[in-house]
Amino acid sequence: MKQFINNKEDIVTEAIDGTIAASGGRLTRLDGYPHIRVVVRSDWDKSKVALVSGGGSGHEPAHAGFVGRGMLTAAVCGDVFASPSVDAVLAGILAVTGPAGCLLIVKNYTGDRLNFGLAAERARAFGHKVSMVIVDDDVALPDLPQARGLAGTLLVHKIAGAMAENGADLDACTRAAERVIGNCRSIGMSLDTCTVPGSQKEDRIPDGMAELGLGIHGEAGVEQIASRGARYSLDKVAQKLMATMSDTPHAVLVNNLGGASVLEMSILTHELLATELGRRIELIIGPDAMMTALDMHGFSITALELTENDAELLQQPVACSGWPGCRPIVSHSILPLPDGLSPIRAPASEHGLTRTFLLACCDILIAAEADLNALDAKSGDGDTGSTLAGAARALTEAMDTLPLADHTQLYRAIGLELSQTMGGSSGVLLAIFFAAAGDASSAGKPMPDALKAGLARMRQIGGANPGDRTMVDALFPALDALPQGLDQAAIAARAGADYTATLTSAKAGRATYINAEQLAGHTDPGAEAVARLFEQLSARSAGG
Amino acid sequence: MKQFINNKEDIVTEAIDGTIAASGGRLTRLDGYPHIRVVVRSDWDKSKVALVSGGGSGHEPAHAGFVGRGMLTAAVCGDVFASPSVDAVLAGILAVTGPAGCLLIVKNYTGDRLNFGLAAERARAFGHKVSMVIVDDDVALPDLPQARGLAGTLLVHKIAGAMAENGADLDACTRAAERVIGNCRSIGMSLDTCTVPGSQKEDRIPDGMAELGLGIHGEAGVEQIASRGARYSLDKVAQKLMATMSDTPHAVLVNNLGGASVLEMSILTHELLATELGRRIELIIGPDAMMTALDMHGFSITALELTENDAELLQQPVACSGWPGCRPIVSHSILPLPDGLSPIRAPASEHGLTRTFLLACCDILIAAEADLNALDAKSGDGDTGSTLAGAARALTEAMDTLPLADHTQLYRAIGLELSQTMGGSSGVLLAIFFAAAGDASSAGKPMPDALKAGLARMRQIGGANPGDRTMVDALFPALDALPQGLDQAAIAARAGADYTATLTSAKAGRATYINAEQLAGHTDPGAEAVARLFEQLSARSAGG
Repeated sequence: MKQFINNKEDIVTEAIDGTIAASGGRLTRLDGYPHIRVVVRSDWDKSKVALVSGGGSGHEPAHAGFVGRGMLTAAVCGDVFASPSVDAVLAGILAVTGPAGCLLIVKNYTGDRLNFGLAAERARAFGHKVSMVIVDDDVALPDLPQARGLAGTLLVHKIAGAMAENGADLDACTRAAERVIGNCRSIGMSLDTCTVPGSQKEDRIPDGMAELGLGIHGEAGVEQIASRGARYSLDKVAQKLMATMSDTPHAVLVNNLGGASVLEMSILTHELLATELGRRIELIIGPDAMMTALDMHGFSITALELTENDAELLQQPVACSGWPGCRPIVSHSILPLPDGLSPIRAPASEHGLTRTFLLACCDILIAAEADLNALDAKSGDGDTGSTLAGAARALTEAMDTLPLADHTQLYRAIGLELSQTMGGSSGVLLAIFFAAAGDASSAGKPMPDALKAGLARMRQIGGANPGDRTMVDALFPALDALPQGLDQAAIAARAGADYTATLTSAKAGRATYINAEQLAGHTDPGAEAVARLFEQLSARSAGG
Repeated sequence: MKQFINNKEDIVTEAIDGTIAASGGRLTRLDGYPHIRVVVRSDWDKSKVALVSGGGSGHEPAHAGFVGRGMLTAAVCGDVFASPSVDAVLAGILAVTGPAGCLLIVKNYTGDRLNFGLAAERARAFGHKVSMVIVDDDVALPDLPQARGLAGTLLVHKIAGAMAENGADLDACTRAAERVIGNCRSIGMSLDTCTVPGSQKEDRIPDGMAELGLGIHGEAGVEQIASRGARYSLDKVAQKLMATMSDTPHAVLVNNLGGASVLEMSILTHELLATELGRRIELIIGPDAMMTALDMHGFSITALELTENDAELLQQPVACSGWPGCRPIVSHSILPLPDGLSPIRAPASEHGLTRTFLLACCDILIAAEADLNALDAKSGDGDTGSTLAGAARALTEAMDTLPLADHTQLYRAIGLELSQTMGGSSGVLLAIFFAAAGDASSAGKPMPDALKAGLARMRQIGGANPGDRTMVDALFPALDALPQGLDQAAIAARAGADYTATLTSAKAGRATYINAEQLAGHTDPGAEAVARLFEQLSARSAGG
């Protein structure tokens, strides 16, 4: 099964139940499953004009997702892409209509017109005031006498819904709905067809092509055009819309037809605003999936000419899950980059002992290059020795620029040097080690404690624990033993490094991808480097 | 091009620009494109703890969509599925961090850990208070030492963000973030891989299979399982989650990985609540696309054990576009069906003249059956005669049950009868005609005016205008002439019907699909029926 559904027959009722369950108590439904599928505001008291919409399912969140204070009072749901029955619509009308009457908002499809139309007549026979508007916002074929109803329907819900919420009467709501219908136009574009549940996806649109001017039921678009990216697509769409638009302020609704990614929708929004049409846009709704055609990889743009108090009504808050809000297009000033991206270098200073010590460390690592590479070749890509030796050479060269007399700044300077000269994760991790040690030093910690603070931070970021077969296995015990002298630290580092040869699974770093047989008996090269460093520093210290 | 993008290199900056443009002025960004891509709250004054998150792009709306009051202060965006640079993260931190400090929220991927980690160190060297938490909510492999960061990250944004907004200090926000990380677990499932821009989609998951326990970068799931629909999928996912969950109240986040339809997400939500895990759910976030993997046709479920004041913090309002709200799971009572779905039938009554008139109408239509079918065969499916004759026979049979003496009720009763016995659009349209005529009659309109009101309503619903080659072409002039007598009406009806034979394009009804040559010279069968009705009624009236 290529979709997350159960039985085809239960799709609509299960989806409604999911929508109601996630509504936080704002929605409920009428009894009468499976034939009557009507989602209703649970806080409705019939004191105002009721707004009822609906139609075939497969357009979620339309229409149930737009039921709530300030938009629809009820949504009547048919099967996927099929109109609900007259009885279902009538049930919806009768359930929510009070003395203020009811406005039916119907998309221009024959089935919906007929079934909502007859239900309206039946409701009128009960003495209810019912008016009905038919949304035909599609401009794919400008001369089509029966233009389809598309996402513009949601603007009718919103503006008439806000008016009803504000206490307008049925006539005023109906006139506003008709005004919105007259002022709004939509067009859709897609790279692929949609998957109707239980059916094979139609393979109609060839690779490299797109359909322009398509509906929301998988029907073919008015024309196939080349698919040349987001900018080209929006140019085509904008041309179609502008052909019938006035040069006055508009709101746009940017609708995901179901299968476009959120990333693509943001790019399309960017391109929309960059078109000539973009100049006319004062308000934007979306981008979001509002009136979908199941999983169709496409979008539609609806433009509404703003008249009267449309702008205010569009921005009035609502309590429904499907409406993403309507926001003004405002120019924004880009913030300047903050100071500090070019690191502050502490002034160079001389300190003989420190220079000697650092040069010794560098020499030791440079001398170990071949051995460490050979070890790394057993469990990695054979470059640990070269990476460390390269860093040591760079540090040696930079020695005259370092603040050797200020140990707090020196840690930070070494960290910076390593982050800039040493590639890969190990460079970043050692940079973090020295930077954190510098922080601890600036807080007054003595050297062993500063280094331990560096290790702790490096472990937090790198995620390596003792026993994970990394340099931590040598460094952790060495720093622990350091207060007892370099000799003890060297002994601990060696024991830790040797221990890594007994570990047959690595839990951090690249060796995680190597199997046990390949690892057994080989010391981790990072741990070996640490052990050699401490051993040889200890030997030199004893010799010197 | 199978995606709505432009140049691959511009994807992230264009998407950010689209997001900022649609934010209504709530978002802006730092200078420094293309290397520095940092989205920032435009109303930020550094008075509170700053929250910075980010990582590779391709997870939209994460993370820029969660920047706003009550959630993130800034989002640092890398290339698709690639960590942002240390400099970019540092720019983000430095731009938003004031005396209250900064919390970095990082998903557990090596690149993000390292780059955010080193940026944190650099920021600390400037004296900033920076803490960092690493989100590892994936439970696909329960024993994995480095579990991935998935949609649980958003709960960390939300809860720590609400605390920061409420004035909590950095330590408190960090502790809360760590608590949420410890208490939340996620798992994903997908039916397909994702399309990385500029790359071919990997064809890894065979038809009929799904991947369970997958990440958000297109990497393979932990296991492939059979795809057996929404219920089966949720059972599997719930089992994995429950294995590590306490039996206490939880919040769940229902996340669309990008390519599941809104319909499917609602069904999945329904199924989630139906699992044993569902009993433990007190709050729900979504369903919505929040932490996507581009266009991946899948979902993830995140469960958070609710402790301390999590529930309150989750429901605190935010000002960002990506957060769909957090709502309580409340039981709802289904509303009873309204009265009136079984139509009220007016009591039968006798009225000789009316009975005679109606029976005559029925006779005329029954007699015309074959001729009308033959006409319809030229432009439709050849059943107009049978449809009308069938309705006439049913009405004749129902004569004794009709309220013949009460003309207002009689219109409505005929409408009801036709809607129940006559199939197809024409049955509904005639039912609407008579129902609307009944309404007009009940408002005191005389017969010709009542019938005209019926026609107006039928035309509104059916969309047919004079000249569209439908029964309206005969009925409209006939009713117009009716006040001058049946003779005049008959003449007008005939002229109208004959006129349809000159119309070579139909604009309403089924004949819209027929070409001009097929239509030319043939009278529309509906218009012919109307003409015969008026002509023969006129003849009988003259004869009688």
